[in-house]
Amino acid sequence: MDPGSSPLLTDLYQLNMIEAYLAYGETKTAVFELFVRKLPARRGFLVAAGLEQVLEFLDELRFSEDEIDWLKRTGRFGASTLDYLAQLRFSGDVHALPEGTVFFANEPILRVTAPLPEAQLVEARLINIVHFQSLIASKAARLVLAAPGKLLVDFGVRRAHGAEAGLMAARASYIAGFAGTATVLAGKMFDIPLFGTMAHSYIQAHDDEAVAFEQFAHARPQDLVLLIDTYDTEAAARKVVALAPRLKEAGITIRGVRLDSGDMIELSKSVRCILDDGGLAQVTIFASGGLEEDQLMAMAKANAPIEGFGIGTSLTTSSDAPALDCAYKLQEYAGLPRRKHSTGKETWPGRKQVWRHYGPDGRMASDTLSVETDEQPGEPLIHQVMHAGKRLGAGPTLSEIRARAAREFELLPEPLRKLEPGATYPVEVGEALSGLAAEFDRHLSQQERKPA
Amino acid sequence: MDPGSSPLLTDLYQLNMIEAYLAYGETKTAVFELFVRKLPARRGFLVAAGLEQVLEFLDELRFSEDEIDWLKRTGRFGASTLDYLAQLRFSGDVHALPEGTVFFANEPILRVTAPLPEAQLVEARLINIVHFQSLIASKAARLVLAAPGKLLVDFGVRRAHGAEAGLMAARASYIAGFAGTATVLAGKMFDIPLFGTMAHSYIQAHDDEAVAFEQFAHARPQDLVLLIDTYDTEAAARKVVALAPRLKEAGITIRGVRLDSGDMIELSKSVRCILDDGGLAQVTIFASGGLEEDQLMAMAKANAPIEGFGIGTSLTTSSDAPALDCAYKLQEYAGLPRRKHSTGKETWPGRKQVWRHYGPDGRMASDTLSVETDEQPGEPLIHQVMHAGKRLGAGPTLSEIRARAAREFELLPEPLRKLEPGATYPVEVGEALSGLAAEFDRHLSQQERKPA
Repeated sequence: MDPGSSPLLTDLYQLNMIEAYLAYGETKTAVFELFVRKLPARRGFLVAAGLEQVLEFLDELRFSEDEIDWLKRTGRFGASTLDYLAQLRFSGDVHALPEGTVFFANEPILRVTAPLPEAQLVEARLINIVHFQSLIASKAARLVLAAPGKLLVDFGVRRAHGAEAGLMAARASYIAGFAGTATVLAGKMFDIPLFGTMAHSYIQAHDDEAVAFEQFAHARPQDLVLLIDTYDTEAAARKVVALAPRLKEAGITIRGVRLDSGDMIELSKSVRCILDDGGLAQVTIFASGGLEEDQLMAMAKANAPIEGFGIGTSLTTSSDAPALDCAYKLQEYAGLPRRKHSTGKETWPGRKQVWRHYGPDGRMASDTLSVETDEQPGEPLIHQVMHAGKRLGAGPTLSEIRARAAREFELLPEPLRKLEPGATYPVEVGEALSGLAAEFDRHLSQQERKPA
Repeated sequence: MDPGSSPLLTDLYQLNMIEAYLAYGETKTAVFELFVRKLPARRGFLVAAGLEQVLEFLDELRFSEDEIDWLKRTGRFGASTLDYLAQLRFSGDVHALPEGTVFFANEPILRVTAPLPEAQLVEARLINIVHFQSLIASKAARLVLAAPGKLLVDFGVRRAHGAEAGLMAARASYIAGFAGTATVLAGKMFDIPLFGTMAHSYIQAHDDEAVAFEQFAHARPQDLVLLIDTYDTEAAARKVVALAPRLKEAGITIRGVRLDSGDMIELSKSVRCILDDGGLAQVTIFASGGLEEDQLMAMAKANAPIEGFGIGTSLTTSSDAPALDCAYKLQEYAGLPRRKHSTGKETWPGRKQVWRHYGPDGRMASDTLSVETDEQPGEPLIHQVMHAGKRLGAGPTLSEIRARAAREFELLPEPLRKLEPGATYPVEVGEALSGLAAEFDRHLSQQERKPA
């Protein structure tokens, strides 16, 4: 069983609260919004991803008999709670930013409108899905922008945080413009293009590097990329030159060589010379090995003759910012706006919309965060995607999502597109929303701030 | 289906190499070892975890018909490769550090001895499993050592990188001494103790915080912990004091209060005073909200009156070091030692053992990394756990693994136990191993370094 589809992938307190809600008939409509409080230091913008998996999760949400039996055996819950859970299906509405949309702090990515216990139960998994894919899409976008015109491939399943992280990182990075992934199962699940070369172990298993190259070429002639840094990179490049004519006679073309260690700028230039001098101008250089966005930018600046990059850990763990400060907060219950006041974690109450304004150059200029019904100029970004537990039509395909993300990056203000450190983007708060927050605070000071 | 059990959770190049190996009959015995090249800046030691999931994966390894059909449809592989994969079962040996063992750079955590294509296929998933759980067990160990005598609970499923990461982080942190987790499914899967309080949304859904406390107490009287920072923490603490006598009459005891924001040292002290003055000396304070090991140490130093901590993102993403520089490298093939020479990534050839030496105080003093057959003084740490694809008996229980980890932390040298920055541990290389590496290099310079 896929553990990701279990409703028990939740925090214990959600079940405890459900029992308390049911005890007092608190099953009226709740509105929760998922948003990021603050962008990490090295992120000027974020990219929404994961909605498709959220909708699948909600669509299929149900407790199995085995799960209800186990809950019963824990002795933690009463019979009426267990009965409620056994028959529970998600019956709410979902509004969301389309996947591939650029967003900023405090802008809702997802809104869940549902009976309070349902909306509460799904909190942990909804954050878990949207947080990770948006984290990786946002990181991947930076890598793509740092290496304009280059082919980027996800090489990171091995150091991704578990199986699902490896698969969803492949999906999220493809959305953000990666050309594909090395992870075979991601290719099967999402129809993402697959890339693969050879590993050092292949070279090492042979007594002679040149023999390894030649045997591999004959066994796997299609898309042939030879790994040349196992022992001495330049010597290996000369072996490739020596081998090419023999392969050509056999009808085999070497498509590229891969570097995986050492000074990539220097090595790529010397290898390029060796290949060019050997008549292999059409053989491209591909690089991998602990690459980060700074190195991609340095290589672009130095005109390193590298056509593509395999990116692993820095992509699939978003290692320079491995988490987003995101939250899923109650904004309305039983028709009344709600707001949290915890120090440093205040939220904007009510159901919200984000309106995007474009400048005379057609680029994004600013956003307005408003109460949903307070119509503003600009493009509304949040759309309904589920009604009463049913999806509103098939969602966009992965290719369509990827195309949306590409358009979004084209429209970013230049400082954000160039990944300039400290570049920010204006998000204004509409008057009706400030008014609602102030009104809630007055209400709170009457109801809550009285001495106990 | 659990995607983590699919043999397609691998890199495309593994399948490409398998086709090339088969084409030339290169199916002799290979020895791969998994190790960490270098410790992250903020890690003085690491903790092995994930072996149980590795053995389950290898034990159940097989391609489904659907997977073989899909591979066939990609057009990438020949019939004999597909036939080989369809019948493939893991037939090799595994040697490993027991889970819960402390280890250092270059020490093998896992050794796989199997026909080359089998050992190659499983690389990505084996790293994926062992890397993540060892990463989290190592981070959790620091959190545990930073908060001696405190109860630590994993609160981090929401920002863990996907479903499996949330579940395996609960397991790995429990191994390292956490008291339990909030993640219900982890409790079900691994029988880890579950903890849960209430969320801000519960308070917010009520018009009056005091009413929320009282209703929750009646609905969920067992292990009652009230969250007091939604609006004004000290005011909420006074409401708890006012409520306690009424609850007592109903036979309900408040076990604790939870802080989730603000200055934890100051707030815990003022809340402690309010509770003590109100006759609630037995009510404990529990804290959560973006906590890291530095804050735990600062709170311990300031004697903050907090009995337990819920730790989320910093634990489940290991946010200060979200990846380990680990590798799975070919060390021997067809009876001959192998070594990689890539710049900065040289490996020690052959099958190895780690011997641990203890000082007169009984604490760990140093390790020796040796050729397996080169017996050294001290305790050998690597043991065989699988033979010819079959597990050698049931592994230790999770409680036994947790007890081992606790003993290991007791035996750490004091600077490592105290998490002193820059504290290191000596790992020596045995003479026979240096000799083997030198011999391999001589062999390589004859075979490989000749001009192409």
